Amino acid sequence: MYQLAERLFPICRSITGDGFRESLSIIREQHPDIQVFEVPSGTEVFDWTIPNEWNIRGGWIKNLQGETIIDFQNCNLHVLGYSIPIHQTVSREELLSHVYTQPEQPEWIPYVTSYYKERWGFCMSEHQKEQLIDDAYEVCIDSTLAPGHLTYGELVLPGETDEELFFSTYLCHPSMANNELSGPCLQTSLISYVKSLPRRHYTYRFVFVPETIGSITYLSRNLLTLQQRVKAGYVLSCVGDNRTYSMVATKYEDTLADRVLQNVLHFHYPEYHHYSFMKRASDERQYGSAGVGLPVCAFCRSKYHEYPEYHTSADNLSLISPEGLEGSYEVMTKVIRALEHNGYYRMTTPCEPQLGKRGLYPTISQKGTYDKARAMQHFTAYADGRNDLIGISNILQIPVDTLIPIKEQLMEHNLLTVE
Amino acid sequence: MYQLAERLFPICRSITGDGFRESLSIIREQHPDIQVFEVPSGTEVFDWTIPNEWNIRGGWIKNLQGETIIDFQNCNLHVLGYSIPIHQTVSREELLSHVYTQPEQPEWIPYVTSYYKERWGFCMSEHQKEQLIDDAYEVCIDSTLAPGHLTYGELVLPGETDEELFFSTYLCHPSMANNELSGPCLQTSLISYVKSLPRRHYTYRFVFVPETIGSITYLSRNLLTLQQRVKAGYVLSCVGDNRTYSMVATKYEDTLADRVLQNVLHFHYPEYHHYSFMKRASDERQYGSAGVGLPVCAFCRSKYHEYPEYHTSADNLSLISPEGLEGSYEVMTKVIRALEHNGYYRMTTPCEPQLGKRGLYPTISQKGTYDKARAMQHFTAYADGRNDLIGISNILQIPVDTLIPIKEQLMEHNLLTVE
Amino acid sequence: MYQLAERLFPICRSITGDGFRESLSIIREQHPDIQVFEVPSGTEVFDWTIPNEWNIRGGWIKNLQGETIIDFQNCNLHVLGYSIPIHQTVSREELLSHVYTQPEQPEWIPYVTSYYKERWGFCMSEHQKEQLIDDAYEVCIDSTLAPGHLTYGELVLPGETDEELFFSTYLCHPSMANNELSGPCLQTSLISYVKSLPRRHYTYRFVFVPETIGSITYLSRNLLTLQQRVKAGYVLSCVGDNRTYSMVATKYEDTLADRVLQNVLHFHYPEYHHYSFMKRASDERQYGSAGVGLPVCAFCRSKYHEYPEYHTSADNLSLISPEGLEGSYEVMTKVIRALEHNGYYRMTTPCEPQLGKRGLYPTISQKGTYDKARAMQHFTAYADGRNDLIGISNILQIPVDTLIPIKEQLMEHNLLTVE
Repeated sequence: MYQLAERLFPICRSITGDGFRESLSIIREQHPDIQVFEVPSGTEVFDWTIPNEWNIRGGWIKNLQGETIIDFQNCNLHVLGYSIPIHQTVSREELLSHVYTQPEQPEWIPYVTSYYKERWGFCMSEHQKEQLIDDAYEVCIDSTLAPGHLTYGELVLPGETDEELFFSTYLCHPSMANNELSGPCLQTSLISYVKSLPRRHYTYRFVFVPETIGSITYLSRNLLTLQQRVKAGYVLSCVGDNRTYSMVATKYEDTLADRVLQNVLHFHYPEYHHYSFMKRASDERQYGSAGVGLPVCAFCRSKYHEYPEYHTSADNLSLISPEGLEGSYEVMTKVIRALEHNGYYRMTTPCEPQLGKRGLYPTISQKGTYDKARAMQHFTAYADGRNDLIGISNILQIPVDTLIPIKEQLMEHNLLTVE
Repeated sequence: MYQLAERLFPICRSITGDGFRESLSIIREQHPDIQVFEVPSGTEVFDWTIPNEWNIRGGWIKNLQGETIIDFQNCNLHVLGYSIPIHQTVSREELLSHVYTQPEQPEWIPYVTSYYKERWGFCMSEHQKEQLIDDAYEVCIDSTLAPGHLTYGELVLPGETDEELFFSTYLCHPSMANNELSGPCLQTSLISYVKSLPRRHYTYRFVFVPETIGSITYLSRNLLTLQQRVKAGYVLSCVGDNRTYSMVATKYEDTLADRVLQNVLHFHYPEYHHYSFMKRASDERQYGSAGVGLPVCAFCRSKYHEYPEYHTSADNLSLISPEGLEGSYEVMTKVIRALEHNGYYRMTTPCEPQLGKRGLYPTISQKGTYDKARAMQHFTAYADGRNDLIGISNILQIPVDTLIPIKEQLMEHNLLTVE
Repeated sequence: MYQLAERLFPICRSITGDGFRESLSIIREQHPDIQVFEVPSGTEVFDWTIPNEWNIRGGWIKNLQGETIIDFQNCNLHVLGYSIPIHQTVSREELLSHVYTQPEQPEWIPYVTSYYKERWGFCMSEHQKEQLIDDAYEVCIDSTLAPGHLTYGELVLPGETDEELFFSTYLCHPSMANNELSGPCLQTSLISYVKSLPRRHYTYRFVFVPETIGSITYLSRNLLTLQQRVKAGYVLSCVGDNRTYSMVATKYEDTLADRVLQNVLHFHYPEYHHYSFMKRASDERQYGSAGVGLPVCAFCRSKYHEYPEYHTSADNLSLISPEGLEGSYEVMTKVIRALEHNGYYRMTTPCEPQLGKRGLYPTISQKGTYDKARAMQHFTAYADGRNDLIGISNILQIPVDTLIPIKEQLMEHNLLTVE
């Protein structure tokens, strides 16, 4: 996963344009079955309109001696996202009114955009801004903002049913690592994992969209299908650092998506952060909005808005790590495994089964000998058709991982059915 | 409000009789549309019977030298409420068996009644009682207890629907200020407020009754109508002092009346006292009784039974104040405003609306710029038809006052409907 | 009760055999109407099969000098429960592989069984084991393990309805006092109590079964009847010591059985232990299993598994006491009384009734005079058809014992009906 992040890092992506396309085509080298969709500028998507396509080749600020002060080639965060083209000499005062910094983090270049209002601008560190002491500068932004398309990718892997698990990530930020590339890299590996499953109860749907406008566009074309089919979904974002795990719950915190992710994090990473829907900020905003209401949580390590490097040049490849990505991969594959094995289980016979005659219970009865088979005995009590596997795990306070082999032993002995 | 209290204070009211009538007619100077009802003594009202009408002209205790020791003209609490007439010379011992004091509050005259058993008696301070050292006294109570009527007042102000908000207060205590006149004075001003509303969703029903027997009488004549129409109601009592605010919840604490009053007090007076229905003592006893079950809370500042001056001569005009009454008026008008604006709101479009193009959201996206429009964004998420305005306020922890203009902006832009 | 325990103590009982029969016949001296059932070995009962019948006459270990080291006559725990017969000389090493001790309680003989796998063995204290230093010993177990029957007893006492209260205890342990005889002794007295009731709303069903296999056998023959009729039930076990009271809740802790026992213990023994179903260990395992789901709690003083003497020779007659048994009897008769008086009560008239005219409320109204009649007034408010007596008790925080006379006074005055 980390190599993919390294390869994607230098590309200047935005919510439209060739950076997005190039990034997606690199991912498609691993999964050529990802379908690519292009939606024209001007298309109305619910309350929104797809904006013009933006492409950029370069941008710089020079002093009147012709020395380059700020250069897009050094860091593509330097140009305001969606900046209109400009090439002229401007006074220091005018330039400063087009400069964005993050004064409380004076060494870092902030990431700033203006998608829906035409502006030009440069982003830089507070220290760089302080060195702009000449009276005038030559500025140049070599961008185009013109009718084109919004691009997104989608892959559907059919399962035994058309009930769906849904995964969504975004690919629309320039060179940032955790809040950009970690999500697509994890999702690319999860696709491989899902393809490797010997059987799939669920159909899996993976989308790579530009944030906000992309998920809105996708929903405008797929809303009913998603509402009918999606049983649980996750937005993958900021999943590459080595810090805590986090989840952003759905609006009412009661969906299967919440229950499974909470269960996995509770047992395996009990120090995880649980954020309410009030703390949402990525595409779970759209998936959970009024009128959409999909069961989609966000999964992160350090959540967007909550770590200092967020939306700055410090969110670079050193912030993420192979181990950080691997940890997120483990959580999400546990989630998938729990979902695949989930169901409402019911014992086939009244009373406790005689586990002893099947070698599943000690044959000698003495104080202290009961504990080992206790988990199975508890499982049989609560497998009464009223609880799904997640519910039983929560009641027994035993991880789903531990219950799955118990469930399978009982099914082999025809003591258990699933509804 | 305070002037009205001053004017009503000297009148000797009881659950029947001319004191009640005179007080109500003073209130009707402001609202002549209040209808007056007279119900004959002996009428059966559910399990109760309306008692004889009581009127009193005077009462005194004189020593045998003809000096007046205790005089009703000085304080109308001196005569036991509903005392039968008497005029005779009695021994000190017999007199004392008819004297009521509050020994732990030795300077105050207690308020005592015997509505349903015929007795005569005098109330006085413990100090006054200690001075009764003569062997005999002449006592006189110039009262009548005879068939007559129970009086109550009712005003219905129609709204756009026949769903009703219900307000009830009592007017049956002699000269006491907080636990008597504060309620009718507040209600008189609330009637003016409701009349001044440009439009009323609800029909408003205000009643002025004698406590207990009056609300029972009123219910016996209006039960079905009230059960069908009343969506929320409040008993107004002890609302004139400067101390804390209080509410007495309904039996199961789950009605609209509870939710709105709790919400208003929570955000604006978070130190308020929330009493369970087990602490009821005024007409919410009847409105919430088994077989009635109306959604009616009590609203107070210092709740009856909970402040030291309660039911004594110390509950006089100095205990209440214009500011105390004004504060209660503010709470109840906030309650009415919240109820008038309440409803189940639903966004008209899936996904978040594009607030930016309407000037409702910043057009530049940088860390720290999101907060200002966040309340509106949160509102749009929870306006999914599942929550009323009070519910959204509780979830977002934003006062209804702040949400009302947001709701109205969204409605102006046709982004929101109400169900 | 304690005398009955003394008489039953010496008998060597097991899950089948003459010890069980003899014990039951002693109980039947008091209640000859208890019916005795014999179910043949080999009968399939759900997932289980009734094992061969086991009887034992003696068992000993002698050294080669003919001296008896261990003798069943001294303590019938010495022989492994369900031990196959043996009579031979064995090496010390072989003997030790058939010896069971409880090393952390070195002075006590543990109680050990092997019902479903054929073994022979001796149980002894760790100290006794340490003295086995000879090279060889003669061992003898004079038992039979052969087709026969499983025995259980059942008594049904009809009531006015066929709704049932169910009580179950076991009679299958050798000489142990708390975890064996306390349950049957209490149940024997409860039968007398129920027979003495002037009227019974409920039909009462009492069973004396061998633990686990006995309750499974009983359920296999009565499941549908029990599921249709039983409204609440209790497993009685370990009810004879002087320590705390305990209950083991049903699976979801929401049945009438839970609510009543919890209510009684809460008000009368608030320091009681409440165990979840995860701590079950007696026949509530079967009654609460998936596919059975009866509303049956376990009632104990020191719960099985939770006291040190459990399943050892130290659980003898000195561990239980007449007072210990009597305390349990008081709890269970309170439970029965609460259940017999339970119901959904509803006032016959709207508004509060006029309690004063019936002498149920003070006729003089002054601060401080309200409290006495307050419980009745509260009862009338919550007797709205929505709460049963247990629910009202929980809301008012007044014991059911106190509410029963209130309820009866109101019914005498035709102010209350039951649904």
